[in-house]
Amino acid sequence: MKSKENSIEKLKIIPLGGLEQIGMNMTAFEYGDSIVVVDCGLAFPEDDMLGVDFVIPDVTYLVENYSKVKGFVITHGHEDHIGAIPYVFKKINVPIYTLKLTMALIEKKLEEHDMLKTVKRKVVKFGQSINLGSFRIEFIKTNHSIQDAAALAIYSPAGTVVHTGDFKVDYTPVYGDAIDLQRFAEIGKKGVLALLCDSTNAERPGFTMSERTVGATFDRIFSEHTKSRLIIATFASNVDRVQQIINSANKYKRKVCLEGRSMINVIGTAIDLGYIDDPGKTLITMDELNNFPPEKTVLVTTGSQGESMAALSRMAANLHKKVKIMPGDVIVFSSHPIPGNEKAVSNVINELSEIGAEVIFQDTHVSGHACQEDIKLMYALLQPKYAIPVHGERRHMQAQALLAESLGIRKENIFILHSGDVLEMSEEKAKIIGKIQTGGILVDGLGVGDVGNIVIRDRQHLAEDGIIIVVMTLEQHSNRLLAGPDIVSRGFVYVRESTDLMEETNRVVLEAVEKCLNKNITDWGKIKSEIKDTLSDFVWKRTQRRPMILPIIMEAEV
Amino acid sequence: MKSKENSIEKLKIIPLGGLEQIGMNMTAFEYGDSIVVVDCGLAFPEDDMLGVDFVIPDVTYLVENYSKVKGFVITHGHEDHIGAIPYVFKKINVPIYTLKLTMALIEKKLEEHDMLKTVKRKVVKFGQSINLGSFRIEFIKTNHSIQDAAALAIYSPAGTVVHTGDFKVDYTPVYGDAIDLQRFAEIGKKGVLALLCDSTNAERPGFTMSERTVGATFDRIFSEHTKSRLIIATFASNVDRVQQIINSANKYKRKVCLEGRSMINVIGTAIDLGYIDDPGKTLITMDELNNFPPEKTVLVTTGSQGESMAALSRMAANLHKKVKIMPGDVIVFSSHPIPGNEKAVSNVINELSEIGAEVIFQDTHVSGHACQEDIKLMYALLQPKYAIPVHGERRHMQAQALLAESLGIRKENIFILHSGDVLEMSEEKAKIIGKIQTGGILVDGLGVGDVGNIVIRDRQHLAEDGIIIVVMTLEQHSNRLLAGPDIVSRGFVYVRESTDLMEETNRVVLEAVEKCLNKNITDWGKIKSEIKDTLSDFVWKRTQRRPMILPIIMEAEV
Repeated sequence: MKSKENSIEKLKIIPLGGLEQIGMNMTAFEYGDSIVVVDCGLAFPEDDMLGVDFVIPDVTYLVENYSKVKGFVITHGHEDHIGAIPYVFKKINVPIYTLKLTMALIEKKLEEHDMLKTVKRKVVKFGQSINLGSFRIEFIKTNHSIQDAAALAIYSPAGTVVHTGDFKVDYTPVYGDAIDLQRFAEIGKKGVLALLCDSTNAERPGFTMSERTVGATFDRIFSEHTKSRLIIATFASNVDRVQQIINSANKYKRKVCLEGRSMINVIGTAIDLGYIDDPGKTLITMDELNNFPPEKTVLVTTGSQGESMAALSRMAANLHKKVKIMPGDVIVFSSHPIPGNEKAVSNVINELSEIGAEVIFQDTHVSGHACQEDIKLMYALLQPKYAIPVHGERRHMQAQALLAESLGIRKENIFILHSGDVLEMSEEKAKIIGKIQTGGILVDGLGVGDVGNIVIRDRQHLAEDGIIIVVMTLEQHSNRLLAGPDIVSRGFVYVRESTDLMEETNRVVLEAVEKCLNKNITDWGKIKSEIKDTLSDFVWKRTQRRPMILPIIMEAEV
Repeated sequence: MKSKENSIEKLKIIPLGGLEQIGMNMTAFEYGDSIVVVDCGLAFPEDDMLGVDFVIPDVTYLVENYSKVKGFVITHGHEDHIGAIPYVFKKINVPIYTLKLTMALIEKKLEEHDMLKTVKRKVVKFGQSINLGSFRIEFIKTNHSIQDAAALAIYSPAGTVVHTGDFKVDYTPVYGDAIDLQRFAEIGKKGVLALLCDSTNAERPGFTMSERTVGATFDRIFSEHTKSRLIIATFASNVDRVQQIINSANKYKRKVCLEGRSMINVIGTAIDLGYIDDPGKTLITMDELNNFPPEKTVLVTTGSQGESMAALSRMAANLHKKVKIMPGDVIVFSSHPIPGNEKAVSNVINELSEIGAEVIFQDTHVSGHACQEDIKLMYALLQPKYAIPVHGERRHMQAQALLAESLGIRKENIFILHSGDVLEMSEEKAKIIGKIQTGGILVDGLGVGDVGNIVIRDRQHLAEDGIIIVVMTLEQHSNRLLAGPDIVSRGFVYVRESTDLMEETNRVVLEAVEKCLNKNITDWGKIKSEIKDTLSDFVWKRTQRRPMILPIIMEAEV
C-alpha cells in the first residue's frame, strides 16, 4: 500500500553527470524499486583531453539496477541533454519519453547507430503525464533556444520534485506559447519538495530578454546592408534564431540558404515537423544560390564559435567548396563566443577582415537561459523546501545557492551536489547518504572508453616534446647485441638541423647499453630503465625538454 | 651632402614582426646606410604550437645588413616589446637606447643570459634625442599600463615618422606625468610623413578611462570586505595597478604581500628604481605574512589569466606551498581575460568557488591602450600624410584604417602591412617595393629554431591519436626475418582493455611483412610503406583513428 511504502521509502536524487562541467546532463530519481532518468547528454572534451571527440556519463549504477529503471524522460533536444543516448542505450534499453521535436532529433541519432527499431519511444505533449513505476512525470511548457523544451514535475510518494531543464521566461516567444507559469504556480501551491533549477545565468542580474528582440536587430542589419551578401553564423540548435532570419529575409526579399552539416540536420528536422514557418518560400538550396544576385541572398551557417571544421571557418580560410568570401560581404556573428572559443572566433574574424569582408557582432545579450530575476520567479512560484542548483559550472551553482538563500530558503536545505552523490530526502529532512560510481567515458572515433587517463597522459606527453625511440636486437640466451641501438625521434627536434645533438644522443645510448651488457645484466627491464634514465638526463641538460623515451628490445634466435 | 642624398634615398619602413599576431613587435627603419630598429618583442605561442615556450622574430635581414644597424630603440618594458632581446642580441650586438625602467627590465633578461657585459646600453630621458646614423630619434612621454612608455619621433632626411608604441591618453596618471600632447602637436605642426599608431583598441568607441579610476573601485572593495583576507590577481607588468593596491592598503591599514615570480621580479625592479611609492610601509614579505591577521593583509598575485603555473592557480588547486585559500577569502580579478584565456580563468574561479571563497571581477574597462577617440586625437595632433596601423590583430588594424579614412587620410595613403613588407616612402609617394624574409622562430626549452613546422605537425599528430611503432630485424643480405615484427603503441588505446584489437593488429602487420618478404622485396622503403598503408587502413576501419604509424627495420649481421 502506498501509505505504508511512504513511511519506509525515501526519494533519492542521484546526479549521474553535469555537475562538474557544462554538458553530460543526467539525473536519476529513485523511489523504492523505481528509477526514472532525466536527460542523457554528452559533454564536449576539455582542452587537455587530446583527440577525444566527446564524453558520455558512466551509467554503471543504472546497469546494476537495470530492473528498476522504468524509463528516460528528456527535457529538450540539445546535445548536452540527448547526445549520449545511442551509447547509453546500448547498455540499458528502456522507453524514452519526450516532446515531438526532441524525439525527432533523438531519432536522427538512433538512426545513425541503427537503433531505431530497438529503442521504444513515446512522444508526449505538454500537460500530459506518464506513469513510470512509483513516479508520475508531467511535462510542463517552458522556453529555451529550441522549441519543445520542457520542465518536469516528478511526482513521487515522498513528494513532488520539479526539474526545470534548460529554461528561460519568454513572454513573447518566436514560436509557440510562453512558459506555462500558471501550471508552475498550481504545482507550487500544492507543495513542492525540491527544485532542480538551471544555473547557467545565475550570475547575471536582471531578466533574460525575449528571443523576439533579436528580430528587430536582424531587420536593422538587413535594411542597412541592401547592397551586400549577408552571411549569418549562429548555432544550428537555435531554431528560433533561424526563424527570425527567415522572417527578415522575407521582409527584405532575400533568399535564405542553410549551410553546415548540423545546420541542415537540425533545421531540416524542424522544417519537416512544421516548427519553421516560411510563408514567402525564401528557403533555397545551395545549388539554387547562384540563380540569385549575392545582395538578394543570405547564407545561414554554422561556425559562430570559430569551430575549425564548421562552414564559416572553411569559408574564411578559403577551403569551402561552394562559397567564396568576397570583399564587401557582410558577416554577422549572431551568438556570443562560449568561454574558451574567443580566440578561435577572433582568428576567423581576422581571416575575414584580411579578405576585406565586413564583420558585425550582433549586439544582443539574448540568452536561452534564465537570469537572476527569472530564477527568482521560478522559486517564488514553486516555493520548494529544498533547492538543488543544476546546469552550469560550480560558480553558477554557487550563485544560484546565494539567490535561493536570499529568497528565504534555509542554508541547510540548499544542496550543491557532485555527480554520484546520493541525496535522500523526505518532508522531514534531506541528506547525502552515499556516493555511487560516476565519471566521464571518453569517446574517440569508434572507441568508447578505450581511451582513459593513461592514454590521455601519453598523448599530452607526446604533444609537449615528442618521442625518442631506442630499438635494439639481442641474441636469445647470449644477450649479444645483434643490431642497434638505433634511435628514431618524432616531434622532438628537427633532426637534419640537429646532427650534433643526434650523434651525441647515439653515443650516450650506446654507452648505456654497453655498460649494461658488459655487466651481464640480462633483465631487460633494467636495461630499459638504464637507457631511459641516461637519455632523459642527457636530453634535459642539452635541451631542457622531456620527450617520451621508449626503449624497445627485440630478441632474435639466430 | 645631405641634400644630394635626400634626392636619391628614400625611407624604408620594414616590419619584422607583430603584424600577423599580438606580440613580437619589431620594426626596422632604413635610410641609406642606416638602420634603426624599434622594439624587440616575443610572442606567446598559438594553441597549436605544441610544447613551444614562445616565438621570436627572424632577424635574417638585420644580420645580412649588420653594418647598417646603428641601434635598437625600445618603447617600453613589456615582453611583447623586449622579450626577444637576449636571443636577437646573440646575433646582432648593437647599442640599446631606452628609458630607465625599461632598461632595468631589459637588464634582468640580459643578466639571465649572462650578456650584461657584452651589450651596450644607454638610458635616455623623455624629450632627449639620440643620433643614429642618418636618423635622429626623440623619445616622447606617453601613458600605458607601465611607466616610462615612450613614443618615438624618427627624424630622417626623407621626413619625420612617429611611432606611438603602446599608448593611451591618461590626463591623471597614477605615477608621473600625462602624455606630452604639446610635443606631439609641435611635431605635427612641423609636418609628419607617417604615423605608426597602436591599433589594439581601435574597435572600441570612446575614450580610454584613466588608470586612476581603478583606485576608487579598490577603495570600495577594501571598505566592503574588512573582515576577509583579500587576494588580488593582476598582471605583473601593470605597475600602476599595484601602486593603487598599495594606496588602498595604506588607507585601509592592510599589509601588502607580493606573490608570483614575475610579480616579484617586475614590481621589485620598479620598487628598486623608486617607481613605486609606499609611504605607509605596507609591503611585507611572504615570511612576515603570518605575523598579521588575514583580514589585515592583501596578497597581490599573478594568475589573473588562469595561467596554470601562476601563483593564484596553484593556490586554487591547493598546490601552493605557502598560501592556502580558505572559505571566506575574497579573490579579486583585476584584469579582463585576454581572448583565449577565458576558460582557464573560469576553471580557476570554479575551484575557488568550490573551496568557498568569494570571487569578484573588478568592474573596470580601463585599458592600457587608446580607444577610438584617443586614436583620433593622435591623428589630429600629428596630421600625418601616411597612416600605418600597427600593434593588434588584422581586425584591429582594419578598424584603425577606417578611422584614419574618416579623418580625411586618403585611402591609398593608408597601409596595412604584413611582416616583411618593404614600404618605401617619400613626400611624393609611398609604395610596397619588396618583401624580405621574416617569420616566427620557435623557442622550446634551450632550443631556438630547432622546432619547426615538421616537428610541430608531428606533435599535433601524436597528440591527436598517439603512435604505433612496428619494429623488426632482418638479416643482412638474406633479408630473413630475425625478430619481430613487434608492435608497441603509446597514446592510442588502453592496451590491456583492447587485447583483441592488438592481436589483430599483430596479425595484420605480420601478414603484410610476410607478403613483402615472400615477394623478395628488399627495398626497405617499400616494406615500410606497405606496413604503414596496411596498418593505417586496418586501424581506421576498426577505430576511426589515425595514429602515427612508424615502422622501424633493423639489420643484423649474424
